[in-house]
Parts: sequence; structure tokens; C-alpha cells
Amino acid sequence: MEKHHVLFLPHNVEILVEKGENLIRAAIQAGVHINASCGGEGVCGKCRVIIEDGNVDGGVTEKLDREDIEKGYRQACLSSVLTDLVVRIPIESEVDAGVLNLQQMPRKTARIWEMNLDDLKDKGLFMPPVEKKYLELPEPTAQDNLPDVTRLVSFLKATHDEHRLVVELPVIRKISDVLRQSHFTVTATLARPVQSGRKTQIIHIQPGDTTSRNYAIAVDIGTTTVYAQVIDLITGDVLAQFGDYNGQISYGEDVISRIIYTGKPGGLDKLHEVVIATINKLIKKVVKKARIDPDEISAITMAGNTTMTQLALKVNPKYIRLSPYVPASTLYPPIKAVDLGLSLGDHVTALVYPAISSYVGGDIVAGVMGSGMYRAEELTLFMDIGTNAEIVIGNKDWLACASCSAGPAFEGGGIKFGMRAAKGAIEDFSLDPVSLEPMNITIGNVRPKGICGSGLITIAATMFEMGVIDNQGKFNRDLNTSRIRETDGIYEYVLAWKHETQIDRDIALTEPDLDNLIRAKGAIFSGCVTLLEEVGLRMQDIDRIFLAGGFGSYVDLEKAMVIGLLPEIDPHRVRFIGNGSLMGAKMSCLTNRIRKDVVAVTKRMTNFELSETRSFMANYVAALFLPHTDMDQFPKLKARLENRSNMQKVLGKNGHAPPTR
Amino acid sequence: MEKHHVLFLPHNVEILVEKGENLIRAAIQAGVHINASCGGEGVCGKCRVIIEDGNVDGGVTEKLDREDIEKGYRQACLSSVLTDLVVRIPIESEVDAGVLNLQQMPRKTARIWEMNLDDLKDKGLFMPPVEKKYLELPEPTAQDNLPDVTRLVSFLKATHDEHRLVVELPVIRKISDVLRQSHFTVTATLARPVQSGRKTQIIHIQPGDTTSRNYAIAVDIGTTTVYAQVIDLITGDVLAQFGDYNGQISYGEDVISRIIYTGKPGGLDKLHEVVIATINKLIKKVVKKARIDPDEISAITMAGNTTMTQLALKVNPKYIRLSPYVPASTLYPPIKAVDLGLSLGDHVTALVYPAISSYVGGDIVAGVMGSGMYRAEELTLFMDIGTNAEIVIGNKDWLACASCSAGPAFEGGGIKFGMRAAKGAIEDFSLDPVSLEPMNITIGNVRPKGICGSGLITIAATMFEMGVIDNQGKFNRDLNTSRIRETDGIYEYVLAWKHETQIDRDIALTEPDLDNLIRAKGAIFSGCVTLLEEVGLRMQDIDRIFLAGGFGSYVDLEKAMVIGLLPEIDPHRVRFIGNGSLMGAKMSCLTNRIRKDVVAVTKRMTNFELSETRSFMANYVAALFLPHTDMDQFPKLKARLENRSNMQKVLGKNGHAPPTR
Repeated sequence: MEKHHVLFLPHNVEILVEKGENLIRAAIQAGVHINASCGGEGVCGKCRVIIEDGNVDGGVTEKLDREDIEKGYRQACLSSVLTDLVVRIPIESEVDAGVLNLQQMPRKTARIWEMNLDDLKDKGLFMPPVEKKYLELPEPTAQDNLPDVTRLVSFLKATHDEHRLVVELPVIRKISDVLRQSHFTVTATLARPVQSGRKTQIIHIQPGDTTSRNYAIAVDIGTTTVYAQVIDLITGDVLAQFGDYNGQISYGEDVISRIIYTGKPGGLDKLHEVVIATINKLIKKVVKKARIDPDEISAITMAGNTTMTQLALKVNPKYIRLSPYVPASTLYPPIKAVDLGLSLGDHVTALVYPAISSYVGGDIVAGVMGSGMYRAEELTLFMDIGTNAEIVIGNKDWLACASCSAGPAFEGGGIKFGMRAAKGAIEDFSLDPVSLEPMNITIGNVRPKGICGSGLITIAATMFEMGVIDNQGKFNRDLNTSRIRETDGIYEYVLAWKHETQIDRDIALTEPDLDNLIRAKGAIFSGCVTLLEEVGLRMQDIDRIFLAGGFGSYVDLEKAMVIGLLPEIDPHRVRFIGNGSLMGAKMSCLTNRIRKDVVAVTKRMTNFELSETRSFMANYVAALFLPHTDMDQFPKLKARLENRSNMQKVLGKNGHAPPTR
Repeated sequence: MEKHHVLFLPHNVEILVEKGENLIRAAIQAGVHINASCGGEGVCGKCRVIIEDGNVDGGVTEKLDREDIEKGYRQACLSSVLTDLVVRIPIESEVDAGVLNLQQMPRKTARIWEMNLDDLKDKGLFMPPVEKKYLELPEPTAQDNLPDVTRLVSFLKATHDEHRLVVELPVIRKISDVLRQSHFTVTATLARPVQSGRKTQIIHIQPGDTTSRNYAIAVDIGTTTVYAQVIDLITGDVLAQFGDYNGQISYGEDVISRIIYTGKPGGLDKLHEVVIATINKLIKKVVKKARIDPDEISAITMAGNTTMTQLALKVNPKYIRLSPYVPASTLYPPIKAVDLGLSLGDHVTALVYPAISSYVGGDIVAGVMGSGMYRAEELTLFMDIGTNAEIVIGNKDWLACASCSAGPAFEGGGIKFGMRAAKGAIEDFSLDPVSLEPMNITIGNVRPKGICGSGLITIAATMFEMGVIDNQGKFNRDLNTSRIRETDGIYEYVLAWKHETQIDRDIALTEPDLDNLIRAKGAIFSGCVTLLEEVGLRMQDIDRIFLAGGFGSYVDLEKAMVIGLLPEIDPHRVRFIGNGSLMGAKMSCLTNRIRKDVVAVTKRMTNFELSETRSFMANYVAALFLPHTDMDQFPKLKARLENRSNMQKVLGKNGHAPPTR
């Protein structure tokens, strides 16, 4: 991909971006504020910049007159980078870089963690659960009329040193015709046992040599979304991936409402059917996208939280939501895919990730397995943040886990203008420290409809660092801006005015929103602290953080540390593992070692019911501040705030520091 | 059952029979001939006897005048024994006991072999494949909120020393509700592995204590008939048994025509569905008869010939009938009963007997296992005679088997008036050596409709010993009886005249019938001889004979030896094992040892394709005589024939020897 340098003036900050990058997004990456409240759709017209050198595509609108355009003025939100650029932020858009350089630390620095397939191969661990063997069998004669199955098994024994073979009924049903249609040259698919010495199953037989085509499907069953991948079991590559909303969404947004739905007559069957239908839809899509023959799919692996897993297996999840929160089972035997209603061959077995407890499910176990955390020396904090945040702490020697009910704030729930991370959601934000005017960046660069979880964190963190809100999430009543106002006794900050939005209402962040956010992040942070205390450790002992889940992958690390959602740690020691559940499902397609290890791992992983621990409540109350009552846990932030406080003493409130040159 | 002595005069032969026994059947058991060609329905009126002492029920008909009745005359075929009796055969019915005492050796002497359950228990082998355990689990608390399955498994480990437990999906699906509806007191059903060290599956969970109710279904899937039993797995008793025609009969009488039918579109599915429907019907009946709750059925075992087994499993049997006669498989994995369409709980596994080859099937293996032949010291000849006769020879050290195509003669096929063993079939027979008048006894004591297999053997043997037919099955043209006649160039003996039958035609035995019989018995005998020769032995080395199958159970041993179907052996060394297939199925419900042993037995059992052996054809040709070309193999018969020949020289043809007193 072609890249270009963009130099922002007067800040004199240069950044390297991909050709075609939106200019306002380039600015926020550079830590340069440009006023923009409409989210990037060109409605508010505030993001005027001057292109002093180079060319952009677009940015010419009716908000600019002919003269401006000739001077090089463009609307940044509608401009994309074509060449190296020199961009000047005109005086009306210029901001205090002296404050903003606090943000100059690269954002989203954490690397996306990716499994190293070559490494797996080097270690001899690339061993998919299913394997194909091409066989040229001797044809039967009157003197050698062994049963077809016996012929196959004997040949595998004699020529491939395969022992303890069992042949499944679907193979028995088709073997005779397959052998004879291909003159006894066939490909047998062998399902490997998890433990050596156990039986290898012959699950499929095909005419001719199909050994070059062997695939698996990996599925992550999320409460909201379901993802499926086609994995090439010969190369280890992901050939296609698709995601879609879990069809169960119509029956309740979260796990609890789904469980309640299963209490209705036919409810369990319905939710089971609906999620299987979603998976089948995805299988169809990925198979088409990868252009493979569905008959070549030999396995399917699945991971999901405990409730999603139970619903997929048609196991009643009723008791998951009733104290003392006992799931039916956390281990699941291999299950014939067709028995679950999956549109796959009758030879395909579904391998389902085990769970730990009612609220630490197979999705988390998949992440722990797939990320390799369970084999690492380093003390790792693994977090998957959603309505429930699951936390796992440990290393190769021990693992402790817990689930915190964070509430739906991170998914937009309980937030006045909260929404999921979808088109029109404010996902990024900065604030002019003088005018307190916002720069909203929305998903899809359209006029805003609301605020998503990662946007909420960034907004709160930015406002907190700028003193717009205090450490209890209350707005500074003394600030000189019309954006902060009191409506019906509730203080709020208007992020976008009515005419700049898609919803024809002012979009604001309220104090109750901030309260919900603080309680959500407080629950998660105190969960981590409590879990560590239970094993005699402190936050400072954490070597690294793995962030799983869609939300975890979009969160702005530094902002998350500012609000005290994450402990303050070198961002290079944070890894985004993305969809850990899907990664784990994929990994168990690539190495049977995972399946061998996972049972031991689940036994080793101690589940803590936080509400049953002595210290959780005290830790929670201590975390109900931004970032925390104990500022010493956030030394860098503490230093910045002290620095800012000193500057404000010099400059007065809303003080305007000179741009750094 | 009350028994009574019946003394027949003037023969002075006494016999002990059950009260209610038909008098003509008592006579034939005693070896006393009474003329009777109508099969026992009272039509011919020839079977007049005088009751000299005691009382009979019935026997008074319009064929007897008042005076006769007062003298004690009764029609034997309509009289049943009420008390001890003295019965005189009047002169018109009196026969040559000098010849008939050849029959005085008790017929059907071979004992019905029955498995000794106590013996099994004494040896510690009473170990059904499924076992129930009653468990009082601790209820979960906030401090102890193990998943339900983990709670169950841990408890079994801790308190019952059960290890390597896996829990099946149906149990996971119901465990939570079952535990809570019964305050955590439950009964778990454990399916035992065949080999120690393998996993025990928890297949079912029920509220409360159901350990006293644990049942299995044993099924024999015959080509013609299907039998099912309910086995009590606590006591080992058979609680109910039912048989019915295999629903596949409408699609072809024999295995070959069924296989041909599977070649039609949808044919395999149809035959599969139809036999499963038959089994389901039988399950319903036996469950009702035994008055058990179907939910308490924990296992089903099945045995059948290779084709019947494959059809029940929906495995295409096409290649069974095509040279070189290769079946798809002879070993079958455990299969979920519901996957086969069986109306049983989803926890029930179907255990299917393995086969040896296309024509030595699981029914034979079941007989070999169930009869214990595979563990015996004695060299045993096991035979199951039907359209195909399967032969197994061997002992605990070696086993050889083969199948001979006997043709359908023993099932009434290819015999002009042949029929299955059903009501109206002539099943027993004797012949007045002077008048050559017949005594026909039919199944159900009704007028004859035809001749069944066992009847055919008895008729042929009787006629041969009396010189009515020669050793090639040709009628003696010189005999003075209207019953032997030539019709359209074919010689025949009229067993019943038109008016005495149900079919309004003369029922006769023809020379082509005899020819078919000789070829059928010749194939079987020469099969045994060939099999023995292949292992370096002779007929004389056989220690004992096991006769399996419906036909095997009804055959008159001595008669079978007379025609050379069986080798001449002390009848006490012959055992009827009845339905060996059903017995084997039942046995594998009672002891897992069978399942453990059976794979080794199938490996040990050498299958011979008789047509591929060098000597079969020569042996076959030698056996196409009554009883055989080599009379020295039948020394007792030889002696009797010589004796008879000498008598005839004294008395002339149709000679009338004096009754023995």
C-alpha cells in the first residue's frame, strides 16, 4: 500500500498515512485537533484546512466560497490524501498542541497478536484433528474377498502403520460404492484421537486422491455476532471469513434475556434452531467465498460463552442465571455435526470448547488456548470486555478467572445516546482545550447517530484530562461553553447539535452516562485487583495484557488507562488478540495439541465468584473514580494532570498555551 | 404340568405324555402307526382306536356309529388325553411294530440347550453392558457451584471408584432439571467399555432410585421372521418375547431378492425403514407384555445375517450377491438407536453382532457366541439350516465356517406341495408298511395344505427305510398301492386325497421333490465334509452337533440322519439351540464378556468359500444319495436296512412282520 507523509502546520507534526486516508482521521492520529462535530459528513463545515502543498481528493463543498477554494481551503473530513501533503490548520481551527502533545504517544499501539503458523509447524505441532490418506488398495478376488472395511483397515495397518482404527457407520454405508467407482484408489479421512493410544476413527472415504483438499470450519458463537472461517488444513491458512448477527438477537439482546426466553414453551428449541441457522448461513457463505467443495470439510470447531454454547447444543441454560449459577456442563463430548442440525457431511464431528463456569465460557477458554497464554512464562492479564467482562490472570503454572457484570455501557447500553459500534457511532474524539469544541469521528464518516463504547471511553478520558469532568465524572460547572448545559436537572455536554446529526436531536453525553461508565470500568478493574489479591499479587505484577473481543480491539489503550479501565502499563506490553474465541476455534483446527491440553487447562483454571470474595466490594468502591482513588497506581497520568494543573495556574481556566514549534 | 401314561396295544408300548395331548401325536411319539391322511382334522376317519381304560376328551364323531362309541371307539386325531390310558389300535389300524420299532428310539431327543444364568453369575460374568447407580449428591451452594456434570462425575469417582467417565450429550441436556426435580438424588446409567481401561459413558440420568428397573431389548433379525425379547438386566430373565414376519417379505422372500430390490430407486431406504418398523412394532409389543416403562430400556442388541444386518443399518448390500461376494463390513460400531430410527430413548446404543462374510452373518456368530461353542473343548458342528445353511465347525482353539446354498427345499420351496411350517403343513408322518397308507400329522391338526421342511425329511426318511423309494429318491415302481402313480411322466406318492385336504387337490410327493431334497441335504452334508477335510478332519471326529434355527429345532434327528442330512451320531450329542441368533443377542445383554470376545472370535473364524475348495464338488456328488454313496458312514442305518432286507426276503415285498409283544 502506498503511503504518504502529511505535515500539519502550525503544529509541525508529521505523520505517515496510507494513500486515500481521510484527512480528519490523519489529524486525530497525529494528535492534531480540528473542530468537527458532525462526525465527518461535511455538515458542520468547521473542519476547514489549507492544503499548502500536495493534492487531496475531494473536500470542495458549498460551505467554501470560490476564493477560499482557490486559497487551498478544503473541508478536512471530506478530503483524502493523494500525495505527500503540507496541511495548515487555520487560526479558527488551531489548537493548543502544548496540551495535545499529551496525546502524541501513538494510539492503538498495541500490536495485533497473530498466531505464528510456521512456528507451529517447526515445533511439529501442526497436526489437525483430521487427516487424509490416499490409498491404492488391491482389488478383491475370489481368493481375497475380505470385507471392504477390513481391506481398508488392513491396508492402513500394513502400509501406513495405522492401528486402533474404527470405522464409522457413514463410511460403512458408502465404502462399497466408493471403492468400486474409483478402482479401489481412495482417500480416507482419519479423525485423530486426543490422546495417543486411543482409537483413530475413519470418518470419510472419497474416490481418488483428495488429499490436497481438506478443510475445517471454525466458529465463534457470540451473543451478538457469529463468525465463521474456512481453514485449509493442508496449509493452515484461513481461506475465508464471514460474520453475521446471531439470529437470536430478536429473542433478547443479552445472555440473560435469551435464558429467560428459553423458559417459554418451545423457547429452547427456537433459540437452538436460530443460532444453528445463523451458523449454517455463515458456512454457506464462507464455503462459497473460499470456493471449496463442502464435502471436503472434515471438521468444525466451535467456541462461545457458556450460554451460547449450551443453546447451540440445545442444553437448557436455565440455571446459569439462578444462584448459585450452576451450568449443566462445562465439558462437551465430540458431537456429530448433523445431530446439531449443521449443514455439513454426516462424517463431520463438532468439537466444542469447554467452559469454566456459567460466566467464564468456552470463548474465554478458546482465547486462553489460542493466545498461548496457558503455555507462557509471563504473568498475563487476559480480558474480554463486553456486557460481561471476563478476566483471566495467570501463566503456564496457574490460572485464575472471574467474570464481572460490567453492565452494558461498553456496548452502548445505559448511555443516553449509546449505540453499538455501527455506522454513525462516534468512535473517536478530541476537544479544543480553549473553545471546548469537539472533533467527533464516526464510524463510516457519516453524521453522528450516537456514541459507541470505545468513543465513550475516549470522550470521557479526554474530558477528564482537560478538566471538563472531575474524577467523579461531574462536569465542571464553571466552564465557558454552551455545550455544557443542564437539562431537567441533569448536566450534559452536547457533542453534536441537532442539525449536525442523523437523528434530528442534540447528541449529548450526560452525567448519568459517565456514572454508568465509571461503574462499568470500576467493576472490571476491581475484578482484576480482587483476582490478583486472591492469588497474592498486585496489578504491578502483571507482565502483559491480552485484550480480546471486538470492543477490546477498538479501545484506545491510553484512554482506557486514563479512565482506569486498564492498569497503567507500557502499551507495548498490551496485545490485541481480536476475536479470541474465533482464534481459539481456528487453533484447534490446526493442532490437536489444543484439544489434548484444554481439559487440563480447564481443571487448572480456578474460577472465582467475585461476589463471594471478601475484598471485591471494597475494591469496587475504590475504583469508582477516574481513574481510581489511589492515583499512585497511575503515575504517568498523575504526572500529566499535575503538569496540566500547573499550566492552568499560569494561564487561567480554559488557558491557551502557545503552540509548540 | 400333569402327565399321564398311555399304553398302546397290541404293541404294548407305553409313553408318558402331558394331559391334553392329542392321541394321534402320542401315538407317533410312541412310534405307533395309525392310518390318518387328513392330518388330524377328523375328515378321513381312518384313525379309529379303542379306549380300553381311562378317559379321553373328544373323539366322538359321526364317522363312528353308536355301537362303536359304546365299545370305546374314538377318532384318535380328535381325542385328547385326560387320564392314564390303555389304547388299542384295532386290526384295521394295526401296524408292523417289527418295522416301526426302528422308530422307538425317542424322537426329538436332543435337549433344548439353555444358557445357565446361575452359572454365568457364579463365574462373575453376569455383567450387562449397562449398569445403574443410585447417587445422593450434595446440593450446590455458593461455595460449591460445580457444573452439574462435574458434580456427578466427581461423586462417582469419590464414592463409587468410577473413573474415565464421559458424559453424553443427552445426559448434559437433561441433567440440570433431573437433579433439581429430585433434590439431587438420581440414578445414572453407565455404559461399560468392552475393554478395561476404556471410557465408561454416562448415558442416562433419572430422578430418584430406578436401579431396580434396567432392561435391554434383544433382537434377531431373520430374513423371514424377526424376534424381540425384553431382558431384565437385574435378574437376567426374559420378561417377554414376540416374533413377527419381517416387513421386508413383501419386497422379496429371500436375501437375494431383497438385495435386488435395494437396486431400485429408494429401495435401500425402503427396506431399511420396513425392517426398523417391524422391530419398532415388536419393541412396542414386548414392552407392553413385560409391563415395563420404555424409558427404563438401556440397551438393544441385534443379530442377523449379513444382508439383514446391512439393511437394518442402511448399508447397501449390493456386492453381497456379486462375485467375489464382498460385504461392506463385518464389524459395526455401536450406533445410537435413534439414528437407526428405533423407537427407543436417545441414550440407547444399538450393539450389532459382527459377521464373518457375506454368507456367514451375525446370526451365526451370535449362535456361536451364545451357545458357548467358542469356549468349548469339544469339536462341535454348528448348523443353521434354511435356504442357506451355515456351518461352523471348531472349538475353543479354532473355528471354520462356510455357507452352502441348500436351496429352498427345507422351507418348502421347489417342492410341488411345499410350504412353510405353518398351519396345515404336514410336519410328521408314518407309513403302514403293509398297506403303505400314510399317517399325516399337520401343524394345528387341520386338514393338510402342503408339506413343510421337517415333514419332507420325515416322509423321505420313512419311505426310504421302508423301501418305498430307493437311494436315488425314485419310487419303487413294483409296490402294490394306488398312492404311487405316474402323472405326466412323473412318479409321485399321494399323501392325501383331494377330499381330505384344504386345497381341493391331491397332495403328493413327487420324484422331482425328492431330487430337490437330496440336492439340498447333499449340499449341506458335503459342506460339512469339505470344511472338515480343509482342516484335516472327518465326520467321525465330531463330538457334538448344535442345531440352530427354527427348522433345526423341528427336524427329526433320526430321520435327518436317515436321509444323510446329518452325520449319524448319538442323538444325545445333538443339541437344539433354537434361535441361536436371538440367544446370542440375549447373551450379549447379559454379559459384556461376549462383546469383548466376539472380535477375537470373528478373527479366529476362517471362512471357506466352498466353491473355491478343490474337494467340494466330489463330496457333493458323493452325497447325492440316500443317505450317501458311502454307507459305512451310516453304520446303524446300514444295519437296519440289511435287517429289513433280510426280513423282506423272508416275507416278500410289503411283508407283514408279526407285532412285537
